[in-house]
Amino acid sequence: VSDAGHRPIGIFDSGVGGLTVADALLRRLPDEALHYFGDTARVPYGSKSGSTVRRYSREAAAYLLSRDVKALVIACNTATAYAGEALHQELPIPVVGVIEPGARAAVAASRTGRIGVIGTTATIASGAYDRAVRRLLPEARVYAQPCPLFVPLVEEGLIGHAATRLVAEEYLRPLREMDVDVVILGCTHYPLLQDVVAGIMGPGVRLVDSALETAAELARVLEGCDLLRSPGAPPEHRFAASDSPLRFREVGRQLMGGIVQAVERVDVDGFVAASGAPPRDRP
Amino acid sequence: VSDAGHRPIGIFDSGVGGLTVADALLRRLPDEALHYFGDTARVPYGSKSGSTVRRYSREAAAYLLSRDVKALVIACNTATAYAGEALHQELPIPVVGVIEPGARAAVAASRTGRIGVIGTTATIASGAYDRAVRRLLPEARVYAQPCPLFVPLVEEGLIGHAATRLVAEEYLRPLREMDVDVVILGCTHYPLLQDVVAGIMGPGVRLVDSALETAAELARVLEGCDLLRSPGAPPEHRFAASDSPLRFREVGRQLMGGIVQAVERVDVDGFVAASGAPPRDRP
Repeated sequence: VSDAGHRPIGIFDSGVGGLTVADALLRRLPDEALHYFGDTARVPYGSKSGSTVRRYSREAAAYLLSRDVKALVIACNTATAYAGEALHQELPIPVVGVIEPGARAAVAASRTGRIGVIGTTATIASGAYDRAVRRLLPEARVYAQPCPLFVPLVEEGLIGHAATRLVAEEYLRPLREMDVDVVILGCTHYPLLQDVVAGIMGPGVRLVDSALETAAELARVLEGCDLLRSPGAPPEHRFAASDSPLRFREVGRQLMGGIVQAVERVDVDGFVAASGAPPRDRP
Repeated sequence: VSDAGHRPIGIFDSGVGGLTVADALLRRLPDEALHYFGDTARVPYGSKSGSTVRRYSREAAAYLLSRDVKALVIACNTATAYAGEALHQELPIPVVGVIEPGARAAVAASRTGRIGVIGTTATIASGAYDRAVRRLLPEARVYAQPCPLFVPLVEEGLIGHAATRLVAEEYLRPLREMDVDVVILGCTHYPLLQDVVAGIMGPGVRLVDSALETAAELARVLEGCDLLRSPGAPPEHRFAASDSPLRFREVGRQLMGGIVQAVERVDVDGFVAASGAPPRDRP
């Protein structure tokens, strides 16, 4: 355990969904300190183009680097799909996304190699899960289905609503017809819909939530790089958002409880790693 | 008719929804040239905070001013609600939003003074329609209902879907119970759902679409300021978007046909009217 391990882990998402990943990280690594950034002023990423998602992800990463994080977790499937490789190559710190761990868990869970993936339009269009699964299991058959209404349905609190069930039945019909035995929940909001998805897919289908696997992967990486934080004084977590801190705090406390204290507002537009300039203040 | 009239009309929205307003403007004022900006890299505005919506609206307006527009149309209810007054005071050109015209049409159409308004969460939270209606008719009773899922449902093409009907029934129940005789469609996407809304509200309820009223208001303003464009060479329209021009063009052509030709990509982050700097290029 080195001194460098005392620096926080940087983690970002397009909004609040990545808090499900943050929660899994802290359960797995309770001594670590997190610095979370939610890009709530530009949410969602999942309906935008790859180049815009890449730009936003680079800005979020540059902001977190300026806060001296020791590792970066991309807690957003769309950002991982479009910027994971670029950030891995460009940044001087370890970078962990949610797609590789999810693919690994799916391959481990599948007996037939017929694997379904659900995600945002952008994540599915990227083909990132398909590639990640077939790197591990070349003979796998991956069936991918975009579910663009799932995030708004979750955010509007309609998880148990009949409309959600109707929409889910329509989205999942092709995966049922393809007889998959695993479905990857390829968006950080989707674990909140797992009862609906499980009910439609039936008991023979395993659902994979990337958050737990991502936490395990991060633990391996930190250990391998000698970057684990030594137990001692309790870690201080920091939360930042690009839109209203009040709203972020409200949702954050629903998902993570009292861990979410003060939330800072930061604007990362145009923020570049090389410049080292602090983000602009906004009133 | 002055020479200044040859400059284009600037018009912006958070995305493509404002094209329904652009279409109404060109039907009413076929000699005018439009310069449309859709902030597709930061869409939606309707779930974000007032201060963020105001900042984005100022940046969009500054960009259009840099393109020498003679008047500004805010073709977005949320932007009008949070930035309409500020832009009216700050800009050296006439500014027309969609809320005042919609409120005027509603007051003209209502016999009972019981008026319903549906819109995004941010538009409804602003109270802007309530204020606008009661400025015209102080004894009016305004019942406002946020319908946050309507935009995603329209954008996913589920206009005639059973899930849309279920969600709409739930949203509109309070307005039915309040016995309104007019419903303002307070979001530029909602006219696309007018059959669903009309079916639920029943034949005694008139629906008000702000686009036509906004076009009439703009015509009055341009005439009053001697800014109408003289007939002659056909007008050239320009379209710009902050995210992928290809996607914008595709949806734009569905809504407005061949009028949408080349679409330029511009990034208006941090763009300020006073600076006069051109927007940054993006690859």
